[in-house]
Amino acid sequence: MFQAAVKTFSASSGGGLTCIRHYCKKTARKLRVSEAVSGAGLGANVKVQGWVRSVRPQKANLFLHVNDGSSLQSLQIVASSELNNPSLTFGSAVEVTGTLKKSPHHKQPVELEAEQIRVVGECNPVDFPFKIKERHSLEYLRQFPHLRCRTNAFSSLLRIRSEATTAIHSYFKDNGFLQIHTPIITSNDCEGAGELFQVEPSGPDHDEDENFFSVPAFLTVSGQLHLEVMSGAFSKVYTFGPTFRAENSQSRRHLAEFYMVEAEVSFTQSLEDLTKVMEDMFRSATEHVLAHCVEDVDLFHKHVTPGHREIVDAMLKRKFPVITYSEAIDILKRSSEKFSFPTDWGCDLQTEHEKYLVKHCGNIPVFVTDYPFNLKPFYARDNQDHPEHTAAAVDLLVPGVGELCGGSLREERLDLLRVRLEEYLDLRRFGSVPHGGFGLGFERYLQCVLGVDNIKDVIPFPRSSHSCLL
Amino acid sequence: MFQAAVKTFSASSGGGLTCIRHYCKKTARKLRVSEAVSGAGLGANVKVQGWVRSVRPQKANLFLHVNDGSSLQSLQIVASSELNNPSLTFGSAVEVTGTLKKSPHHKQPVELEAEQIRVVGECNPVDFPFKIKERHSLEYLRQFPHLRCRTNAFSSLLRIRSEATTAIHSYFKDNGFLQIHTPIITSNDCEGAGELFQVEPSGPDHDEDENFFSVPAFLTVSGQLHLEVMSGAFSKVYTFGPTFRAENSQSRRHLAEFYMVEAEVSFTQSLEDLTKVMEDMFRSATEHVLAHCVEDVDLFHKHVTPGHREIVDAMLKRKFPVITYSEAIDILKRSSEKFSFPTDWGCDLQTEHEKYLVKHCGNIPVFVTDYPFNLKPFYARDNQDHPEHTAAAVDLLVPGVGELCGGSLREERLDLLRVRLEEYLDLRRFGSVPHGGFGLGFERYLQCVLGVDNIKDVIPFPRSSHSCLL
Repeated sequence: MFQAAVKTFSASSGGGLTCIRHYCKKTARKLRVSEAVSGAGLGANVKVQGWVRSVRPQKANLFLHVNDGSSLQSLQIVASSELNNPSLTFGSAVEVTGTLKKSPHHKQPVELEAEQIRVVGECNPVDFPFKIKERHSLEYLRQFPHLRCRTNAFSSLLRIRSEATTAIHSYFKDNGFLQIHTPIITSNDCEGAGELFQVEPSGPDHDEDENFFSVPAFLTVSGQLHLEVMSGAFSKVYTFGPTFRAENSQSRRHLAEFYMVEAEVSFTQSLEDLTKVMEDMFRSATEHVLAHCVEDVDLFHKHVTPGHREIVDAMLKRKFPVITYSEAIDILKRSSEKFSFPTDWGCDLQTEHEKYLVKHCGNIPVFVTDYPFNLKPFYARDNQDHPEHTAAAVDLLVPGVGELCGGSLREERLDLLRVRLEEYLDLRRFGSVPHGGFGLGFERYLQCVLGVDNIKDVIPFPRSSHSCLL
Repeated sequence: MFQAAVKTFSASSGGGLTCIRHYCKKTARKLRVSEAVSGAGLGANVKVQGWVRSVRPQKANLFLHVNDGSSLQSLQIVASSELNNPSLTFGSAVEVTGTLKKSPHHKQPVELEAEQIRVVGECNPVDFPFKIKERHSLEYLRQFPHLRCRTNAFSSLLRIRSEATTAIHSYFKDNGFLQIHTPIITSNDCEGAGELFQVEPSGPDHDEDENFFSVPAFLTVSGQLHLEVMSGAFSKVYTFGPTFRAENSQSRRHLAEFYMVEAEVSFTQSLEDLTKVMEDMFRSATEHVLAHCVEDVDLFHKHVTPGHREIVDAMLKRKFPVITYSEAIDILKRSSEKFSFPTDWGCDLQTEHEKYLVKHCGNIPVFVTDYPFNLKPFYARDNQDHPEHTAAAVDLLVPGVGELCGGSLREERLDLLRVRLEEYLDLRRFGSVPHGGFGLGFERYLQCVLGVDNIKDVIPFPRSSHSCLL
């Protein structure tokens, strides 16, 4: 296995870094671990760089696993024991040069026969908070926001998050939506609710009596108004970025900063114009992630959230059912379940109700449409129905999470809006069109696909009340 | 041209909207303007929705141009004069059904022979701030952030911006970079400079004496530190999102909220590992935009910034030259130009110097490397050279804009950093690797490609001191 004939010598550099090398005259081709394990460059002289995930010294040979984040898989390194040295520890950064060979063991298809191992950065395993071969809980990892990307679970999550982001952008691009960078700082309060963060320059130079922007400015809670501006010129627009709520909550469901996908469609005729986009996007993004992140998703579905794969597969099998709010109330009233919150027509659906409805519909995503008019914000389109006055609004409820998307047709009729917000009117004066839109909570989406319970475990750097680490 | 044989009738609905229609029993296929003008659906019965860009009533026929934002081009509609009505004005929203035909005029390849024109949303041309057939200046448009997307220039800009965003994501994905959503709210101040926005909940419920996050929290000025965290597990990462500066400036060069592309590369050996990424990304994004937004880019290069196309073509023709800061100082000292700022070794390069250097190198992008150690932030890698002490930092200067990118190798040596920032140290303890990264100002990039002078004209909703419209 190890080519003992290679002429060797060793050299020690200063500064605590040790470099032991075999003589090697060819220039090695730099390869990512994902490329190496997939069999690219078999037989070639290659250089691989990454972090040591395991060290197993044996009598004649030394076995390492090296990972560079390009894949869940690590590359097995086989070296002569002479190449071992004390700074070659779990967590250290290394650069390995050698020949990529077919592995004699069936556990991995290829291995790298090392000619040179250079420790690029040391790692003291006593100080390092993660222990070799140990599976740490997501709660434990959360304490180390600057290091948890070094674990299998969180690096898988980040690869899935990146791929899901790509998939969502692709869906919109393929379907003719224009991406708009809606602003973070805004003088609007879209939802009309409180829980806003205000923004002003810090420091002593700042005049306390004057607003930097001349008006009070806040972090956006939704890009909807800005998308609505754009939907007056582009018939399909979307935005995908961070939004903010100053909610004083430490729950596993809340973040102060979270990502939202929002879309706005012009010339709508019914809520179906929106539910189609929501369902297609969910399906297309999820199928993309399942197809492109096989190992990473498997890690979650096998080890972190066992049993969740069946739930995801079931979600994709059937068309999402659509029920009206009134039908939902009927279902809840007929059920034998004891709810903490009332289920009378006109009451908002609580998480317990949403979860029941999802179960009732076969534990797959379900659309609930036409909510009571008074439960929805001023911009939701009036259905002008009697006696139960409803608005053309829709929520998508999903297993485990509850509400994933919320949307509505927007009130495009100037006279109906006039009684409400004056500032909103100018958007309706010049070629106003029926339109509608929705928002999807991206972290909730990831929770739904992966089965992850705590929202803080699906975002790189979680922010919530009393917590802004790094 | 107009099919007079079609049986017609007209109907008036209430509420000020008028609908005149020809009888039409086929269900029309919905088509976007971009599809229609490209010849898709020729001969078919189609429905097109959009906003009226021109109305030209003639004796027998009515000519309209309808645009839906999918393309710079509008679709020509030809209808019987009977289909005209008073609410069919410039800016109104319409839905047109009819047959797509080859146009007898060479000005456009296709036209829609209308059977029905429905005014979906009226627009009073007296109130509407844009006038038919008039070219408004970018300054004028800036006053109407909620309507400027209705103009050719700004809708072209938004399509280019969306396409450039796609191109940048594609470049990084194709080159093995993982996208990280770095946080907006942070307890760090990466640049160590002032000009930070502080964030706290607004409203009376908020306890003035306690920070929401327990610590003071700010809007990010750079995702670098968070990318550096990730570069300890993934050898190539990037982020693309908004960053903030509380700079009290009304200049055409500054925004309080702007977009930045930032990348971090591990296992770097020299600045070339970074300049290669910067140059490749610039080239690949620009070529993509020029190839995919031909008409939109032409609008800028012909009507908004005439002469700029030649500059862009020249930028892409040659490899970007690389000069050291010391060479740059020599060039400036040898020049006959009178500069307002000193050109002594150790002084920072000012915009006037940067512009001169770009001109000197043939008016193409130029890299300046190895700046004086004392000019660069604590994390830039010490070149440990004598007598001129420099850091491994690089800026990319481009025509018209000056600095487009700034980057550096990061100091990975724990002992050299120890004297500096304590908090930064934990990132160097566990398998520290040589790495480096850079940031690119996305608005400046768009200015550079399009030749646009004012940064407020390349972002959907500009924010700067005393200005936060919408």
